[in-house]
Amino acid sequence: MKRRKFLKTTVVGVSAGTIAAPAIVRAAQTFSWKMTTTWPPQLPFYQVGPGSAEGMAKNIEEMSDGRLKIKVYAAGELVPWNGGFDAVSAGTVEMNHGVAYYWAGKRFAAQYFGTVPFGMSYAGQTAWYYHGGGLELWNEVYEPFNLVAMPCGCTGVQMGGWFRKEMNSLKDFQGLKMRIPGLAGKVYGQIGVNVKLLGGGEIFPALERGVIDAAEWVGPYQDRRLGLHKAAKFYYTSDWHEPSTTSELIVNKAAYNKLPKDLQAIVQAAARDAHVTSYTWAEAYNADALEDLVKNYGVQTRQFPPDVINALRKVTYQTLEEEAKKDPMTRKVHDSFMAFKKKHDVWGNLSEAYFLSIR
Amino acid sequence: MKRRKFLKTTVVGVSAGTIAAPAIVRAAQTFSWKMTTTWPPQLPFYQVGPGSAEGMAKNIEEMSDGRLKIKVYAAGELVPWNGGFDAVSAGTVEMNHGVAYYWAGKRFAAQYFGTVPFGMSYAGQTAWYYHGGGLELWNEVYEPFNLVAMPCGCTGVQMGGWFRKEMNSLKDFQGLKMRIPGLAGKVYGQIGVNVKLLGGGEIFPALERGVIDAAEWVGPYQDRRLGLHKAAKFYYTSDWHEPSTTSELIVNKAAYNKLPKDLQAIVQAAARDAHVTSYTWAEAYNADALEDLVKNYGVQTRQFPPDVINALRKVTYQTLEEEAKKDPMTRKVHDSFMAFKKKHDVWGNLSEAYFLSIR
Repeated sequence: MKRRKFLKTTVVGVSAGTIAAPAIVRAAQTFSWKMTTTWPPQLPFYQVGPGSAEGMAKNIEEMSDGRLKIKVYAAGELVPWNGGFDAVSAGTVEMNHGVAYYWAGKRFAAQYFGTVPFGMSYAGQTAWYYHGGGLELWNEVYEPFNLVAMPCGCTGVQMGGWFRKEMNSLKDFQGLKMRIPGLAGKVYGQIGVNVKLLGGGEIFPALERGVIDAAEWVGPYQDRRLGLHKAAKFYYTSDWHEPSTTSELIVNKAAYNKLPKDLQAIVQAAARDAHVTSYTWAEAYNADALEDLVKNYGVQTRQFPPDVINALRKVTYQTLEEEAKKDPMTRKVHDSFMAFKKKHDVWGNLSEAYFLSIR
Repeated sequence: MKRRKFLKTTVVGVSAGTIAAPAIVRAAQTFSWKMTTTWPPQLPFYQVGPGSAEGMAKNIEEMSDGRLKIKVYAAGELVPWNGGFDAVSAGTVEMNHGVAYYWAGKRFAAQYFGTVPFGMSYAGQTAWYYHGGGLELWNEVYEPFNLVAMPCGCTGVQMGGWFRKEMNSLKDFQGLKMRIPGLAGKVYGQIGVNVKLLGGGEIFPALERGVIDAAEWVGPYQDRRLGLHKAAKFYYTSDWHEPSTTSELIVNKAAYNKLPKDLQAIVQAAARDAHVTSYTWAEAYNADALEDLVKNYGVQTRQFPPDVINALRKVTYQTLEEEAKKDPMTRKVHDSFMAFKKKHDVWGNLSEAYFLSIR
């Protein structure tokens, strides 16, 4: 690597109008890549805007002075919304932007790199990725698929969802028709909820017409975009199910390995940049949207009763434990996550949680 | 800019051993910069390690393939620990890594870009910088000094400090000899504390010999390094005074403007990368250190009594309000910060704070 670079490098004179530093002529290789995503076109936070898929691609192009150009395709434009994992694995496209829990059907362990119900919020989850072995495990789980993975965004704590009636006890969940996908849906099913799977565009009409009684989506900003506040008035905060949903960048390993070291470093830094940029964007815009929903639309915020939270926590831990028993890799990831959480929760209670109670 | 780049660019043939993409020959200008810091050499988190001053400089060098080299000087190696602001302003060095509240004597408003007692923790503070107008105000305050400023690290919520005796009421603070600098020291002074200013190296011997009764430093990881747990057993969590201490990168504006756009983008992204990398490093290593301190050294964690917290909050707000009355720029920054905090606190209570109470 060093030798090739030396052969390509020639020191030339200083150009007019620049400061007195040597100029180096390099043969800069350019790369034109494709990134698929799991998101609709124009969806803020995920697809467009600061820290999104397109935002990250633009950042990479600017940092590389155009040497790594990434064309971003929304869901369905090149492959179906959930086709990105296989496409990147096969090398048909170089990158996909999504959430790891979409691939939990392939490897259950992927759930831990999306978000874990009753798990950790942004601080702990991200600390686990970067400094607690989580990112290494993520890449170990994806090793058979020729992928390099990294976190590149976070929604923060999501909301519990929209309910047409107040929920006063565990009994109120019996037979409740609720739109809730993934692991959380599985858990709700076990406490008696009639779980419905609907795409984003189907939620509002179903909730408005009473075809469903409740629906979970993301948080104030995204939920307002779907108009859910016009279909149900009670907004439950008991955001047990997705405390830190992490956006995922996966890169085809062979393509990644062909990048020179500086472009690899740029991709890695752009993903970390997007992780904090998108998280804080969500914090700012959710605060705005929540104020708007309460002030201007009469939305009422609520918390689930303690017996509901306790039942959900119990079923969640049972479910995770059952999955961990099924294969050694899930066991390994589960144990790493839980050991980190146990230690970090003690610190979090003493620092962040305490501060939030006195500020 | 576009035209100059075009004149310098020549498309040449594809080199052997590379993929089928055009190679571009560019005259790449290199820059050799100096970064001073306010930190001792080898201090983890601040000076060395992931997300530190040296970590960020290394990241920039890697991303730029050596076109922007930054030599990092610890406190006293080139200028005194607090000489970096003036040196960067004068252009003697190009960058300084420190904390904005060190410059609160020059402009009180700088306090808000360090951390605000009873203010916001990482999520809200960072959201204010990136998406709530905070970063624009930071640069407006520094405009007369020819500086470009950006956040590049965060300690997270700091600890209240080490006390040789338990603190059971406001009365126990009367005449208490405590090492506590800055705005927090000013506030403690107003509730009767005998405030002592000591450098990092002086704290342990003073606390051990009883010359002082209490001392604040950073958090479990940094405090253990100073050995403070061997001088006092009660570790108070009531981290009201520094909820999100932000590391600051300042760059001489003329030097920054001479960088091509790609290197400017790299510096900006490296700072955001360091911001999240260092924060989560602190979260992971503080969790570790706290466990060690409690398990292996018999450290006892405590919370300040509510009357103490209430008195400190009241005096803090009075002090900030007095400063805001003194000059229009402080007023402007104070009002922006407090308006953002008010809105974000509502969202934070519903999301992060609630989740931390049920996880």
